[in-house]
Amino acid sequence: MVESSRIYTAALIVIGDEILSGRTHDKNIAQVATWLGIQGIRLKEVRVVADDTAAIVEAVNTLRARNDYLFTTGGIGPTHDDITVDAIAEALGVAVVVHPEARAILEGYYQERGGLTDARLRMARVPDGADLIPNRYTGAPGIRHGNVFIMAGVPAITSGMLDALSGQLEGGAPLLSETIGCWVQESEVADLLGRTEQAHAGCQIGSYPFWRDGKTGANFVIRSVDAEELAACTRALIADLEAMERPAIPGGI
Amino acid sequence: MVESSRIYTAALIVIGDEILSGRTHDKNIAQVATWLGIQGIRLKEVRVVADDTAAIVEAVNTLRARNDYLFTTGGIGPTHDDITVDAIAEALGVAVVVHPEARAILEGYYQERGGLTDARLRMARVPDGADLIPNRYTGAPGIRHGNVFIMAGVPAITSGMLDALSGQLEGGAPLLSETIGCWVQESEVADLLGRTEQAHAGCQIGSYPFWRDGKTGANFVIRSVDAEELAACTRALIADLEAMERPAIPGGI
Repeated sequence: MVESSRIYTAALIVIGDEILSGRTHDKNIAQVATWLGIQGIRLKEVRVVADDTAAIVEAVNTLRARNDYLFTTGGIGPTHDDITVDAIAEALGVAVVVHPEARAILEGYYQERGGLTDARLRMARVPDGADLIPNRYTGAPGIRHGNVFIMAGVPAITSGMLDALSGQLEGGAPLLSETIGCWVQESEVADLLGRTEQAHAGCQIGSYPFWRDGKTGANFVIRSVDAEELAACTRALIADLEAMERPAIPGGI
Repeated sequence: MVESSRIYTAALIVIGDEILSGRTHDKNIAQVATWLGIQGIRLKEVRVVADDTAAIVEAVNTLRARNDYLFTTGGIGPTHDDITVDAIAEALGVAVVVHPEARAILEGYYQERGGLTDARLRMARVPDGADLIPNRYTGAPGIRHGNVFIMAGVPAITSGMLDALSGQLEGGAPLLSETIGCWVQESEVADLLGRTEQAHAGCQIGSYPFWRDGKTGANFVIRSVDAEELAACTRALIADLEAMERPAIPGGI
């Protein structure tokens, strides 16, 4: 057994009318979730809110208080609908200031791209007391203030900012997982899954059904921070499925 | 000008550890958002929560109180990790009961599929006082209780439940939109966008930058419930972009 260690949690706020209208399909939830898992941090909750100051302030203050880390994506560009920095500064109770290093980065980036206009300078504005998160794509940096990490909405830029943060945040034991696929209706094995989970302390089993080529199947995902318990639970589930003449397919279907 | 009409709002709760772990990429946010737009209902906020009773209860009670409609996806299958019905009944302060019509539907569906086991009967359980939402794919129905709509997590099944609800919910004037693409850095037109939005009451302009084939562009989405204002705002923005020798590309890039 692994020594029980503290569980580190994070929340994510996806900011943007374009997600709530259905126009843009969010890619940041899965990206941030996967990255956090590797850092040993659990994504506990996500909220998608509009480009609306009150909505952002409410979400920021609720989620930063009850998680180790809070990430946001979206709303940090140069246009009038980019209100994330102002809203988060309001939530934190601090002023918005131009960060000198961000200003210097943007001056360099825009030197041969038409110069640093007032609109572009907006991207150097941060809640007072913030540090920067490098962005190797477009100059404009992300922002860290305490346990709040403010990132871009464009997934490729978000990805670069996450890379810059890799290994920088304290996490706990990563949640390990095994996936087993099976051509079975999940309702046939519902009792088995529940019993197997109960018999293996610290393991959770998720069941995800699908229909493919006219056939019914399910993937079972077993999760634990303890590699030995995880392996034992996985072996037990495979054996029980075999006993039902429903062969388990390691890695999932 | 359209007579100002009441704005109808909805919230969505996506329930499931598989979304928060990054394993499954959510497709229901965009699907529900688009469907709501057609019904004349605005998706105001989304929360993704774990398969955890307390988290579901908190989200349900906050969001159903401040929106006309609340939708949930996920957690209504037959396995031990499907706790949505119990959690929502707790939030509503009602008991969980077997719905006779749901039981009859499932008996029919499973008649030639091995019979209605206890696990399968779980899918006939509803918060007391609920009505059913038909599901033409797998028998197991969705559930409506007051302004709360409980739907499946598998996107194809969610889609069928939304179809069954189409035209059933009272909405307001649909939010109309026009999209204009332009090969321009959004920072070059930031002031223009802000001025144009201010000059056209009831219009919002969103700016969504991208980088493609080494070139920088942006799509501008103009939204309004008033078709005339929308058209006037769109024409004004196109004319101003032309004046900058940045031709607008109707429909977006």
